[in-house]
Amino acid sequence: MAEKMDNRITLAHGSGGSLTHKLIRETFLPLLSNPLLGRLDDGAVFGVDKGRLAFTTDSYVVNPLFFPGGDIGRLAVCGTVNDLSMCGARPLYLSLSLIIEEGFSQPDLQRIISSVREAALEADVEVITGDTKVVGRGSADGLFITTSGIGIVPEGIEVSGTNAKAGDKVILSGTLGDHGMTILIQREGLGFEGPIESDCAPLNQMVSSMLEASHDIHCLRDPTRGGLATTLNEIALQSEVGILIQEDATPLNPSVSALCELLGFDPLYVANEGKLVAMVKASDSDRVLEAMKENKYGKRATIIGEVTGEHPGRVVIRTRMGTSRIVDMLTGDLLPRIC
Amino acid sequence: MAEKMDNRITLAHGSGGSLTHKLIRETFLPLLSNPLLGRLDDGAVFGVDKGRLAFTTDSYVVNPLFFPGGDIGRLAVCGTVNDLSMCGARPLYLSLSLIIEEGFSQPDLQRIISSVREAALEADVEVITGDTKVVGRGSADGLFITTSGIGIVPEGIEVSGTNAKAGDKVILSGTLGDHGMTILIQREGLGFEGPIESDCAPLNQMVSSMLEASHDIHCLRDPTRGGLATTLNEIALQSEVGILIQEDATPLNPSVSALCELLGFDPLYVANEGKLVAMVKASDSDRVLEAMKENKYGKRATIIGEVTGEHPGRVVIRTRMGTSRIVDMLTGDLLPRIC
Repeated sequence: MAEKMDNRITLAHGSGGSLTHKLIRETFLPLLSNPLLGRLDDGAVFGVDKGRLAFTTDSYVVNPLFFPGGDIGRLAVCGTVNDLSMCGARPLYLSLSLIIEEGFSQPDLQRIISSVREAALEADVEVITGDTKVVGRGSADGLFITTSGIGIVPEGIEVSGTNAKAGDKVILSGTLGDHGMTILIQREGLGFEGPIESDCAPLNQMVSSMLEASHDIHCLRDPTRGGLATTLNEIALQSEVGILIQEDATPLNPSVSALCELLGFDPLYVANEGKLVAMVKASDSDRVLEAMKENKYGKRATIIGEVTGEHPGRVVIRTRMGTSRIVDMLTGDLLPRIC
Repeated sequence: MAEKMDNRITLAHGSGGSLTHKLIRETFLPLLSNPLLGRLDDGAVFGVDKGRLAFTTDSYVVNPLFFPGGDIGRLAVCGTVNDLSMCGARPLYLSLSLIIEEGFSQPDLQRIISSVREAALEADVEVITGDTKVVGRGSADGLFITTSGIGIVPEGIEVSGTNAKAGDKVILSGTLGDHGMTILIQREGLGFEGPIESDCAPLNQMVSSMLEASHDIHCLRDPTRGGLATTLNEIALQSEVGILIQEDATPLNPSVSALCELLGFDPLYVANEGKLVAMVKASDSDRVLEAMKENKYGKRATIIGEVTGEHPGRVVIRTRMGTSRIVDMLTGDLLPRIC
């Protein structure tokens, strides 16, 4: 019994006292160590040059915590790295704040922090500050993680959801719906046999190559909760433009496509965690597309439509028959706790 | 029934779709609006000059959410503002990430975001980016908030838990234990009649005045979870110095003192949310003390001891009888979910 308890997180691990320090020293520092984190001050201090910084935050409440293609640790790093990238920023530093339910498995925590480490190494970012809170049994569901991030916006880059312009090409970096459908299968125990796994990935290196290929990338966004349809609606509203996409232009993995059809999900609304959509000046779009295809997370990148001056604030799909229909923002909730 | 449901947070408020947008537009933006937040991009972009920045994060899981002297919103702003201040930084920007339990009261959420607004105004910081997640009933306890913060460290300032030096004076900004005892009374329904309220406050303006009075403030720390005893132990370990404090030198509100005695709590271990302890070069200590006393949160500031070259890593109390005893870091958990 004593041995078993030793493998569980207790309320005292969140007390700020000796067990909190032991957890930091024995679990977090060996995996995440760097000189800034190692100082263990109330915050981390680092130097910057004159310029522009991006700052973002996201809480992750995904259920289950482990899924094919990733876990909450990888998700928490990639999601925040991607949000910085979507500002045109080069991600530098992350904070990591944990809310843990009493009784949570210490080996699982270790495994999740190892994923944080691996994703941070892949994305070339450092976790430099953090916090750990523990709440009683039943007051949280296992583990929630909040990551915030800081990145540098290179000179000459102006990327914003407000910047899409009529005439821009709309480029999507790959298949839709992989993350959402993976979570659904895991959670509902569907026993679906198809090879579906989350696309959870850091996109910062692909974005760097894209921005080297063109400074006329007006808008970048990762279609997570709410899917591509919601993301395009956000941009159409923020930029006061119309967006026209072609039916069947969005790539789909065959198993995701089959499962969506079976269950009646529209992949346009299903969450992604390693995809981006870009609005790019038409004359630069082929160059940007080539840059994306050279990255392992952009091999299936493709132009799916264009920004128009018509029907501002609206997203429209043109069918193969030549007719059109409006695509709204997600209403209701397709699938809670996807990220 | 329909009306009642309208006042509750639903899973769809966390979907990233139309209800999330409505919540942001109708609840968050009117209270927190500023040009950076208003862009609604995946992150906020701001300019910086060459220099040093501080970055910090904390999750807040306090129970109850509302208490005399504050609520989780005020706490989330003050805690992060104070962590930046303890790095010697001038706080600039905050992120705000919410994890909300399905069914949470929208008026309560509004009240909490109003507190965020007021505390941010008082501390002169802006909330520039955020996130909202909703989890099902029973998967969280009402509301958890994670704030991260960015601040500028002025030139010439070197404040760190590693910098305490033998000979430094130890200054405490005021009474101990007010926050912890307030939460205890609320939670346990003790019906204690004494006028006890949380000390929850932003200390950045006091810290600015202190740093104007002296650049030889070596170390600043706010004794939150684990109390003053744990904080002093952290500094003793990080700086490899001894710390000697005088018995009865720490100010206490009479009701806190009475309640601690009644319940057998040592105020040295009880959490504070608007206090700081500073290690200051002896020759500058009176000047720093004066600066603190001019601020409304430092009126009862006092020198409580000194840093020594003896017993490195240890905190020792000297009693009025001239004897000494070692004060350890908090072991176990005095009171969970204090912040």
